[in-house]
Amino acid sequence: MPTDTLSATFAALADPTRRAILARLSEGEATVKALAEPFELSLPTVSKHLKVLEQAGLIVKSREAQWRPCRLDAGPLKEADEYIERYRRFWEQRFSRLDNYLRELQKSLKESQHNRDETGEDTGGRTE
Amino acid sequence: MPTDTLSATFAALADPTRRAILARLSEGEATVKALAEPFELSLPTVSKHLKVLEQAGLIVKSREAQWRPCRLDAGPLKEADEYIERYRRFWEQRFSRLDNYLRELQKSLKESQHNRDETGEDTGGRTE
Repeated sequence: MPTDTLSATFAALADPTRRAILARLSEGEATVKALAEPFELSLPTVSKHLKVLEQAGLIVKSREAQWRPCRLDAGPLKEADEYIERYRRFWEQRFSRLDNYLRELQKSLKESQHNRDETGEDTGGRTE
Repeated sequence: MPTDTLSATFAALADPTRRAILARLSEGEATVKALAEPFELSLPTVSKHLKVLEQAGLIVKSREAQWRPCRLDAGPLKEADEYIERYRRFWEQRFSRLDNYLRELQKSLKESQHNRDETGEDTGGRTE
C-alpha cells in the first residue's frame, strides 16, 4: 500500500471501477449496496474498492447506523491536480509541435497541388 | 497491470520513485544509469520503474545504440488532467466551506471579545 498521500490518491484512481464509484458519488451519496448494483460485482469486491478509496481520503462513510452511506471527498484531488499541472507546459509543447507539423504538412500539400495546377498537370491520361 | 490508458497513467504516478524519475526527466533526457544514481537503487529496480513509465507512455527510450537515453512524454498527463479537472468544483466547494467556517469562527470570537469589553469583563480577579 502506498504511504504518501499523492501515491495513495493516484493508486486509488488507477482502476476503472473505483473511478466509476467516484463518478456515481459525485451525483450524491449512496450506500454500498446501491454502489454495487450497476457493476454486477459482489458486495465484498465493492467493499474492497471502497476501502482503497476511503484510505486515500476520497470517500467518507457516514456514521449513521445501519444505512451508512458513502460520500465523495474531492479534497485529495486538489494535490493531484497541482502535481499534474506542473507538467502542463510539456504536454502543451508536445501538442503544439504536433499542430505545427500538421499545419506544415497541409501547407506543403496545398503548395504541391497549386504547382500541379500551374503546370497544367492532372491525373487524367496525357499523351506526350 | 491496468489495461486502459487512464489507469496505466495513474498507476505509474502512484510511486514516489517514479514521480522523481519524471521530475528528473522534465529537466532533460537521461540514461538509466544517471537516473539510478540519486536513488541509490539497483539498475534492475530502476529498470522496472522505467518499464512501468514506458508502458504508460510517460517516457520514451531513444533507439540510439548503447547510450539509449530516456525522455519525458507528458502526453498521457493531459487525459489525467482532464479527468481530475471534472472534480474541481467539488474540492473548491469543500475548501470554500472550510474558509467560510473559519471566517464565522473568527467573527464569533471577535464578537465575544467585543461583548466582554463592553460589559467590562476581563480575566483579572474581580470581587462581587
